[in-house]
Amino acid sequence: MTFQAEWLRKTLLATSLALVTAGLAPATFAADKRPAEFKVTDFLLDNGMEVVVIPDHRSPIVTHMVWYKVGSADEPPGKSGIAHFFEHLMFKATANHAAGEFDRAVSDIGGSNNAFTSYDYTAFHETVAPSALELMMSFEADRMRNLILTDDVIKTERDVILEERRSRIDNSPEAVLEEELDATLWQNQPYRIPVIGWMQEMEQLNRTDAVAFYNKYYQPNNAVLIVAGDVEPDTVKALAEKTYGKIARGPDLPPRVRPVEPEQNTRRTVTLSDARVSVPNFSTQWVVPSYHTAKPGEAEALDLLAEILGGGNRSRLYQALVVRQGIASNAGAYFQGTMLDDTNFTVYGTPRGDARLVDVEAAVDAEVVRIAREGVTAKELDKAKDRYVRSMVFARDKQDSMANIYGAELATGGNVQDIEQWPERIRNITPGEIKAVAARYLVLARWTTGYLLPQQQAGN
Amino acid sequence: MTFQAEWLRKTLLATSLALVTAGLAPATFAADKRPAEFKVTDFLLDNGMEVVVIPDHRSPIVTHMVWYKVGSADEPPGKSGIAHFFEHLMFKATANHAAGEFDRAVSDIGGSNNAFTSYDYTAFHETVAPSALELMMSFEADRMRNLILTDDVIKTERDVILEERRSRIDNSPEAVLEEELDATLWQNQPYRIPVIGWMQEMEQLNRTDAVAFYNKYYQPNNAVLIVAGDVEPDTVKALAEKTYGKIARGPDLPPRVRPVEPEQNTRRTVTLSDARVSVPNFSTQWVVPSYHTAKPGEAEALDLLAEILGGGNRSRLYQALVVRQGIASNAGAYFQGTMLDDTNFTVYGTPRGDARLVDVEAAVDAEVVRIAREGVTAKELDKAKDRYVRSMVFARDKQDSMANIYGAELATGGNVQDIEQWPERIRNITPGEIKAVAARYLVLARWTTGYLLPQQQAGN
Repeated sequence: MTFQAEWLRKTLLATSLALVTAGLAPATFAADKRPAEFKVTDFLLDNGMEVVVIPDHRSPIVTHMVWYKVGSADEPPGKSGIAHFFEHLMFKATANHAAGEFDRAVSDIGGSNNAFTSYDYTAFHETVAPSALELMMSFEADRMRNLILTDDVIKTERDVILEERRSRIDNSPEAVLEEELDATLWQNQPYRIPVIGWMQEMEQLNRTDAVAFYNKYYQPNNAVLIVAGDVEPDTVKALAEKTYGKIARGPDLPPRVRPVEPEQNTRRTVTLSDARVSVPNFSTQWVVPSYHTAKPGEAEALDLLAEILGGGNRSRLYQALVVRQGIASNAGAYFQGTMLDDTNFTVYGTPRGDARLVDVEAAVDAEVVRIAREGVTAKELDKAKDRYVRSMVFARDKQDSMANIYGAELATGGNVQDIEQWPERIRNITPGEIKAVAARYLVLARWTTGYLLPQQQAGN
Repeated sequence: MTFQAEWLRKTLLATSLALVTAGLAPATFAADKRPAEFKVTDFLLDNGMEVVVIPDHRSPIVTHMVWYKVGSADEPPGKSGIAHFFEHLMFKATANHAAGEFDRAVSDIGGSNNAFTSYDYTAFHETVAPSALELMMSFEADRMRNLILTDDVIKTERDVILEERRSRIDNSPEAVLEEELDATLWQNQPYRIPVIGWMQEMEQLNRTDAVAFYNKYYQPNNAVLIVAGDVEPDTVKALAEKTYGKIARGPDLPPRVRPVEPEQNTRRTVTLSDARVSVPNFSTQWVVPSYHTAKPGEAEALDLLAEILGGGNRSRLYQALVVRQGIASNAGAYFQGTMLDDTNFTVYGTPRGDARLVDVEAAVDAEVVRIAREGVTAKELDKAKDRYVRSMVFARDKQDSMANIYGAELATGGNVQDIEQWPERIRNITPGEIKAVAARYLVLARWTTGYLLPQQQAGN
């Protein structure tokens, strides 16, 4: 029920595709060599609901998730925050259950549950013993269509999300900067609007808005069910038909075609100075294609570019700025590929000791220029691919990561096959393709940079 | 038929309220002392169309304008450019007249005509002999509802607006910068979207979009007729009823409530470096209320603040930077008050000779800080009010300016009375009110600045 969009975006999703192949055979990348026990099954219910089953029999637990293909970027103009509002409203009373009953049922059996909202989706999930899977499905299917949205419920939960905004965004210089930086990077595409919503619009959200949104998007044909864990596909299918299958198909939704970003022709900066900031930092962003909008190979190349340039302690940025020059306490890069529309590629840095922010930024820029001009070596690329493999092996241990990866992929225009073929596509990327995306997208004349500064450095 | 929005915004509208009282008695500001020959008449037709008649009997000409209360800020998401598209489509064939027939009728009688689009309205106008007024009304009423929107017409005119965008925006570093600067200042309110539209959205505008837009907005109850010139109100009324009056009232439109801007917490910059730029310049903008959104007196105070700070050769900025310090070839300020939603207050400067842009900017900032901290003197304020009076006397000679002033006011939520009472409201503004709006709105920690630089100063 907590607001996890930013966390998700910055952590899980940034590495989600690196984790994607945790369900596949990591050593060979060959889909046809996967052990049968890892075979992912997907099918449709008659009402259009997609179902993905990810077997994992090591522990007697199951992760159950429902992903709705609606996020903040689908909100009507002036109604920002309503997608995330449902992350809260979905825990209130339905025609069949009192508010809080679902939560109690989960905790009574020692399970855990939560929900999160992002630009492209809203997801609800529970982790429980396999014997409780049917109960989870029953609760989840019930709240998909039977929520009781009264004025009282709206008012109470609206106060909650307003307070959430105050505490998580307005009280945090980092969050305020990030919000205005996003809205400066994106001048037309709806990723410019914060997932939690603009305060002045959240305050006006009402029952009419909520009912319209619920009836439009909370329908089986707009949902993806992910079940990962100690359960068989046939069992999941039978239970899903018994619960979700009873819900009538909703009206067809139009394609998710959103306003797209015009070409950027300028350098843009956004600066926040605040007395609560002790160490300055900067981040520079470029608009780049996502896995859903990229030409074949470009998103995979951007993933590897981010890994080589700034994916960890072995990356160029870390080695140059933190290890060799010693001017930064941190420096890196990331690419958020699992998005429905064009996304961002980011580099960032924080000075260490007496080093100046401007020098850290210049050093990062120099690495960006170098990689765009000279490309990467075959050895670097192979090592980056190997680091991906290691992260996959690690991710294999996390049932909920697997569920998240499949859910996010299917909620952003991809399918199970895309995930299964991804390692092979990564493996095929050449140094030339890395250089090409770096040269094409990481252009110094057209970036957007955010600066977080201590108060006294306001004039920096 | 030309794209005049930017020109209008920067010139006519910037001074429109200064010109407003051209129809009133400039020496006294007292509405009840106006000569009867200047009395402005307004009334409604039965179908909801507003009519304003502004008598001016000095020359045997009449200015006829129809203002539709729809501009680029009313466009559906992803359909930018469609309001301006109608500025072109309205000159094509109707059920009763071939394409170009209206234009020829005007030029055959020695008249002139044109159209323009802005954020809040789209207007069509003709200047002709009074004997031709009925003919103008007949043509204008015809195209309000009888336009024939075929796929061929859409395609042909879409090519025209695309070329217009290429030549007027994409080929102009100033225009490209301004577009991205607007979209950086405005992060939620639709003034962030360029009036001419984003290229990638203009390319997709189709017949379905156009028909929906036309049927929604091109209706008598969404239009204001302004007739200024050598004609009597009774004559205008009779002719309007005979022409426009025959059109059925359209469906009621919802209130023009648009997404509003969140509070700005950052400093933002947008920089364009281009080889075609020889002399750099900068402009700094703040979000401020418009006449339609301001508390009583605030917009009037902002108008006078702009006049004192940077309204002309007598202003503080010009005197300090151009005359005394000699570092700028130009420096000033303006306030665009006649807008439906919150608007912008702008200061700007251009270095002279070897002066550096950064020094010009610092000198402008210093004047902004000084006026916000110390306010203005009673003498300065009186002189500013007097300069307004002189500009009014000047504007009185321009029939089309008068028509524009009334049209823009009525299309942005105002009425005839607002215009008539405006001089008195200006006269009542005190130095304290000027200081208050300067201190409240011109905050240096929260501005948005655009820099236009020669190529070699990219790193400036």
